[in-house]
Amino acid sequence: MTLKLVVIGGGSSYTPEIIEGIILRHDSFPVTEIVLVDVEAGKQKLEIVGQLAKRMIEKAKKPIQLSWTLDRREALKQADFVSTQIRVGGLAARSKDERIPLEYGYIGQETNGAGGIFKAFRTIPVLMELAKDVHEICPNAWIINFTNPAGIVTEALLKHSPHKKVIGVCNIPYNMRHSTAEILNTKPENIMIEFIGMNHYVFGRKVWVNGVDYTTEVLAKLKEGLDYSPANIVNLGWSQTFIKATSLLPNPYHQYYFQTAQVLKKDVQALKENGTRAEVVQQLEKSLFELYKNPDLCEKPKELEERGGAFYSDVACSLMDSIYNNKADVQTVNTLNNGAIPDLSEDAVIEVNSVITKNGPQPIVVGSLPDSVKGHIYQMKAFEKLVIRASITGNYEDAYLAMVMNPLIGEEADSKRLLDALLEAHKDYLPQF
Amino acid sequence: MTLKLVVIGGGSSYTPEIIEGIILRHDSFPVTEIVLVDVEAGKQKLEIVGQLAKRMIEKAKKPIQLSWTLDRREALKQADFVSTQIRVGGLAARSKDERIPLEYGYIGQETNGAGGIFKAFRTIPVLMELAKDVHEICPNAWIINFTNPAGIVTEALLKHSPHKKVIGVCNIPYNMRHSTAEILNTKPENIMIEFIGMNHYVFGRKVWVNGVDYTTEVLAKLKEGLDYSPANIVNLGWSQTFIKATSLLPNPYHQYYFQTAQVLKKDVQALKENGTRAEVVQQLEKSLFELYKNPDLCEKPKELEERGGAFYSDVACSLMDSIYNNKADVQTVNTLNNGAIPDLSEDAVIEVNSVITKNGPQPIVVGSLPDSVKGHIYQMKAFEKLVIRASITGNYEDAYLAMVMNPLIGEEADSKRLLDALLEAHKDYLPQF
Amino acid sequence: MTLKLVVIGGGSSYTPEIIEGIILRHDSFPVTEIVLVDVEAGKQKLEIVGQLAKRMIEKAKKPIQLSWTLDRREALKQADFVSTQIRVGGLAARSKDERIPLEYGYIGQETNGAGGIFKAFRTIPVLMELAKDVHEICPNAWIINFTNPAGIVTEALLKHSPHKKVIGVCNIPYNMRHSTAEILNTKPENIMIEFIGMNHYVFGRKVWVNGVDYTTEVLAKLKEGLDYSPANIVNLGWSQTFIKATSLLPNPYHQYYFQTAQVLKKDVQALKENGTRAEVVQQLEKSLFELYKNPDLCEKPKELEERGGAFYSDVACSLMDSIYNNKADVQTVNTLNNGAIPDLSEDAVIEVNSVITKNGPQPIVVGSLPDSVKGHIYQMKAFEKLVIRASITGNYEDAYLAMVMNPLIGEEADSKRLLDALLEAHKDYLPQF
Amino acid sequence: MTLKLVVIGGGSSYTPEIIEGIILRHDSFPVTEIVLVDVEAGKQKLEIVGQLAKRMIEKAKKPIQLSWTLDRREALKQADFVSTQIRVGGLAARSKDERIPLEYGYIGQETNGAGGIFKAFRTIPVLMELAKDVHEICPNAWIINFTNPAGIVTEALLKHSPHKKVIGVCNIPYNMRHSTAEILNTKPENIMIEFIGMNHYVFGRKVWVNGVDYTTEVLAKLKEGLDYSPANIVNLGWSQTFIKATSLLPNPYHQYYFQTAQVLKKDVQALKENGTRAEVVQQLEKSLFELYKNPDLCEKPKELEERGGAFYSDVACSLMDSIYNNKADVQTVNTLNNGAIPDLSEDAVIEVNSVITKNGPQPIVVGSLPDSVKGHIYQMKAFEKLVIRASITGNYEDAYLAMVMNPLIGEEADSKRLLDALLEAHKDYLPQF
Repeated sequence: MTLKLVVIGGGSSYTPEIIEGIILRHDSFPVTEIVLVDVEAGKQKLEIVGQLAKRMIEKAKKPIQLSWTLDRREALKQADFVSTQIRVGGLAARSKDERIPLEYGYIGQETNGAGGIFKAFRTIPVLMELAKDVHEICPNAWIINFTNPAGIVTEALLKHSPHKKVIGVCNIPYNMRHSTAEILNTKPENIMIEFIGMNHYVFGRKVWVNGVDYTTEVLAKLKEGLDYSPANIVNLGWSQTFIKATSLLPNPYHQYYFQTAQVLKKDVQALKENGTRAEVVQQLEKSLFELYKNPDLCEKPKELEERGGAFYSDVACSLMDSIYNNKADVQTVNTLNNGAIPDLSEDAVIEVNSVITKNGPQPIVVGSLPDSVKGHIYQMKAFEKLVIRASITGNYEDAYLAMVMNPLIGEEADSKRLLDALLEAHKDYLPQF
Repeated sequence: MTLKLVVIGGGSSYTPEIIEGIILRHDSFPVTEIVLVDVEAGKQKLEIVGQLAKRMIEKAKKPIQLSWTLDRREALKQADFVSTQIRVGGLAARSKDERIPLEYGYIGQETNGAGGIFKAFRTIPVLMELAKDVHEICPNAWIINFTNPAGIVTEALLKHSPHKKVIGVCNIPYNMRHSTAEILNTKPENIMIEFIGMNHYVFGRKVWVNGVDYTTEVLAKLKEGLDYSPANIVNLGWSQTFIKATSLLPNPYHQYYFQTAQVLKKDVQALKENGTRAEVVQQLEKSLFELYKNPDLCEKPKELEERGGAFYSDVACSLMDSIYNNKADVQTVNTLNNGAIPDLSEDAVIEVNSVITKNGPQPIVVGSLPDSVKGHIYQMKAFEKLVIRASITGNYEDAYLAMVMNPLIGEEADSKRLLDALLEAHKDYLPQF
Repeated sequence: MTLKLVVIGGGSSYTPEIIEGIILRHDSFPVTEIVLVDVEAGKQKLEIVGQLAKRMIEKAKKPIQLSWTLDRREALKQADFVSTQIRVGGLAARSKDERIPLEYGYIGQETNGAGGIFKAFRTIPVLMELAKDVHEICPNAWIINFTNPAGIVTEALLKHSPHKKVIGVCNIPYNMRHSTAEILNTKPENIMIEFIGMNHYVFGRKVWVNGVDYTTEVLAKLKEGLDYSPANIVNLGWSQTFIKATSLLPNPYHQYYFQTAQVLKKDVQALKENGTRAEVVQQLEKSLFELYKNPDLCEKPKELEERGGAFYSDVACSLMDSIYNNKADVQTVNTLNNGAIPDLSEDAVIEVNSVITKNGPQPIVVGSLPDSVKGHIYQMKAFEKLVIRASITGNYEDAYLAMVMNPLIGEEADSKRLLDALLEAHKDYLPQF
Repeated sequence: MTLKLVVIGGGSSYTPEIIEGIILRHDSFPVTEIVLVDVEAGKQKLEIVGQLAKRMIEKAKKPIQLSWTLDRREALKQADFVSTQIRVGGLAARSKDERIPLEYGYIGQETNGAGGIFKAFRTIPVLMELAKDVHEICPNAWIINFTNPAGIVTEALLKHSPHKKVIGVCNIPYNMRHSTAEILNTKPENIMIEFIGMNHYVFGRKVWVNGVDYTTEVLAKLKEGLDYSPANIVNLGWSQTFIKATSLLPNPYHQYYFQTAQVLKKDVQALKENGTRAEVVQQLEKSLFELYKNPDLCEKPKELEERGGAFYSDVACSLMDSIYNNKADVQTVNTLNNGAIPDLSEDAVIEVNSVITKNGPQPIVVGSLPDSVKGHIYQMKAFEKLVIRASITGNYEDAYLAMVMNPLIGEEADSKRLLDALLEAHKDYLPQF
């Protein structure tokens, strides 16, 4: 029996992580073939990463056939899993998403605010094409979508593509579980968190250690400044009042929404000193690829962890393992709400604890949203719906409304100015507009 | 048969309007008794207004018995209608609502943002007491609530007081109908607007002239700068893009939400030049009461119109007339949603076209909210719910969350600072906290 | 200005009623042209009715141009209103709907149970074609649907036809208002009833006389045996317990659902004695058309009232009048729920008090269904949805499920036997199956 | 550490099953103490069962302390789990539930129709008292409710008692899984069924074998007459049309609803031949207790399986095991809907696959009900709500409406006659009426 994984965006610097993940779980999740796929522009990186991956597999002595190609449709044949980790327009586009909003006085960030909107605009049409190919060529394959904004992208595919076997993943819930384990001095596998909300806007409502409720203890620690940030964002900490009033664990991205002015100030300063985060990452990547080229390197280098986005592969491999083995265990994924949060529409995608079987995720019910954040979650979901619509149709008014509805923008006139500036800056990647 | 109206806050400078309204419609709505009620602090004004009202009625030769008193419970006996137009803490309190937020860099306004929140905090407990008295003393009477924030106050009474015959009114829908009539060169009675949303956050979705859809024409005019502002707020105009993208008629208060930075700048400037709006109004009121004292004045002076809030009495008299005469005509009021907007909870109060009979308002269904503003309306309603809860319980965390959820505030740390400053400033009127 | 009415099924014996209605309200609703349309099989009746209608108009001296034709598409040109009163398969088909279920031990009735299901199956495809023609030829015209099962047919057209200006009417609410007026000794125009539910399954929840609640009085009278039956069904009366427990006014058709065994017994007996109701009506019609032929007859003959379905024309003319004159008065029609009953889906058609303007009906909110009948109403609506689906697609399983879900049938095996028998009996009129 | 189980109704003939279950899983679920509790009337049986249970534990050499008592409050001290298996009024009352409806021409059954209604009426007040005691004496204990009608009883406790740690269990889902495994020739642990609906009205929508969808295969087999009946009800088999049209696995009790006439006929015949099922069971019990008295009997006798209700203990022990060990595995229980089926209210109890942890069950979302049975499920749930209300308040009208709404009764006049007869027959156990 074969078990084939296709990695879309296989030339990414993250690929060694997923290769390592596959190697480590090979006993329970016996992948027989991996194909790394990338686009023309990423050809060189694909070659470097492909060679490294090959050395890693050889060293691990696993019977996995590895190849790399620019021919996506060929690669998809007989695939069981298709993971996506693409960046349309590369880090250069990200840099614009970060820099241009700041010029207009708004937060510039990869997955939130105006930057996140444009990342969605660039990404969704490309992944829609992929989903169509998957549906035609390997209709039983699961798409495991890593690509940000992961929740919005997953909702777009589930709503508008013919392929319905799509799951979105993010390392934020994973990180929150790990950080919580750390401050409670226990192992992550003992921790269960009830998540409510959407990707990058998810809250933790309950924390259990081996089934015992430790929410109060965790919230108390949080007030003392627990940090769950992924490497790419710095946590400003939360006030006692905020934590007490919401009684929820925020995720690191919430600072953009509740500490906007402070974050903006910090980001303007950082821009002056170091350029955008994208530019920093570009340097980081350059060094990483230098490392990768070393023919003696046969494992994931430690330097990769600084890159941010750590544990993504752990999350994805764990998910594929449970699907493959019909484990019926609980994992946190981005999938159709279907009533789990009755306040949101059934076809909305949420980030939610789900039972994972061969048939994919079945969300566990969450129940009504707490009053403390109901309004924000409603607004964010309504905003996401508009982003998706604009991504698909290229409708200018929908794009404008998405800017107006986003809590980080909102101003009637600036929304237009910023929209126009970003449409112009990214026009090569936005054929739909 | 008697028909008795009790005016709570009868010493208000607005009272001559409602007296005039009653006189003008006496044929169809034959009021036999009016009692003006006020509190100790307003005794002097009550006396002046009472005397003027008396002269107005005498001149009009209507068989209406008029009196004024500080004894509310006595006044309520046998009342058929109780109108409320109170201002807890007077213009001095309003001035603080306007000035203090500006000091922290946020919009200071009577019914929106932090100011509106504190007006609700001061007002709701007082009107809750009134509603209890009404329920005990004149259980069949309708409370017609003018007091701002009118929607929030009405929802608080309908949810938490024993008295369920409460209707909220506002002159904004009235003004929007009149302004629309003006630009379409027709009479207001020919205009019907479909309203969606809540008080001070209501949009017009459809405009009909004698039943023919003129929405497109009105939106086109709006882009050219139609002004429906009440006297107390200046309209900055709306961009073509905003109108085109939403396809909705905004109300004048929407500028606070979609033109925040611009309004803030203007308000800071205005504060420097003229002080707060409350202080301006204080001057205006002083002159008005000077006029009122004139024993030769037997009608509503024209100067009252500058005061803002014009037509309130028209709205209220029209409503009482339809209830009294079981007219089954359509008017725009604040009443229980009950499914009219299925996206909002049934016990939410919305501003909605309703059929008015002796049994009060029965809303006409509105249907699902448009995607363009669904998020904002959701968030505002969730915010209002928190304001009401905090008003009733005095819970600090709920008050804090209301600040955090309000789109005009939102920042985690400033919310606390501003909340604490306003709690301190208004502490005499906030026994519940 | 012209005002043109097209009557589909114009050869019906009911037509003199609608002609009379048009004549009586000609001042406010000045129809200029009426075209009676029928099919080949009804040609002879159409001629007789046409001639009578002509004599009626001439006698009344109204400037209405009348004609009759078999060419529907020609007739529809420039129509403002299109009323439908068709019977696919004629009384012969109705007779089968009444006789065959009785043979299997189930109620046989024109609009309920198996008979109603098959009337829907025969009627919906025909009216779907009409709606398409209307949409193409006179897109601004309102379809006023009298054809039974009126609620189901209206929902089918609103869901599946391109034409959205469709209103269903029934004389049951009208009759209930009149009967109630009678027992309260007042005029029908003083009565308002709050209706909840669907056509032929509607309940009255509140009764007001000039705005004063008389529900208790009416329910008390009802226990004494008030009869609101239309001519075609005999009321068995309601027990005090039933009325007390539901606190609702049932409509005459409710006996089929709550007195099934008793009605069945009575109907079996009636069948033996007089044949089916259809057969009785056939005789009645024969005599009516003999009367109609009389060239001296220039008005609606009294004998028509025995035919059942009285006041239909009053209901329809009143509705068209309010639309034409943009009256904004309240009438009871079958229209989209849109949230009026939040328990039912927004695209369900309900029978509901609505404000009638030039834009058609806007329902007044009803709110949640009472627990006493919530289950039945849910089930009936789910059943109706299946009937509509089967009518459109001809899907055998959906038709079978409709039988199984109907409270008057329900048995797994009999449902199939009865379905097969009726499909066979009506096959000429069921091309979709 | 102690782990204490209290068995309410411990004198039941079923008790040896649960004792066996506890013994078999003692390694993973190490119960340290069991107390069997019963009422005065069951004292003798309690003694017999207690002695047998003692011999079973001794033979198994497990360190479990066993006792039996009539003092419920004493027994509850420090309990971790409280299981309930009571029968208020005993088999004599059940016999009336079965016999009296048949006399009026309606199905008489223990948990459905009029019989089920009266079992609820007798049971709910007694368990409400238990729940209050549990909440006071051992607030952390889980109530595992076996008592029928299990779904209705569980909803009543969750809605109206102070104790919220209540889970309802039934062996029907277990039996369906086992029967399905049998016909697919695989082990029950490989089977997962997606259940939708409520206790005794639950359908299977999907069947997976090791995560692969076998629904079509199972439905095909079902048409050939698969039998999942528990011992106490005989399956009449399902027609191909019914299975094809619903595409659902019915449960054995569905025959009461979809094959009513046939079942009624069979039951009338059975009554004549053997008396009621309760009477049959009385004989069975007599023999069982004779066996139990045998001092050499140290294990569960095989004859117990004929009694019906087999595997109940397996279901319950499995559930307690997963709670105790925080297993996070999936089991089918009766718990709060909370949005799992968005068509039903959040506080309705449904039978649903749930993740079981130390915090109890968290349902997996089911999504919207299929049109094929939506109406029936709606009606049943509305009916159940009325039964619960009448059980708590003793309101005659609610009880009457429950009869009218029950699909097995429904007739206006018979509902009253049957209600009155059963109220009279059971009056000793219905203090609330």
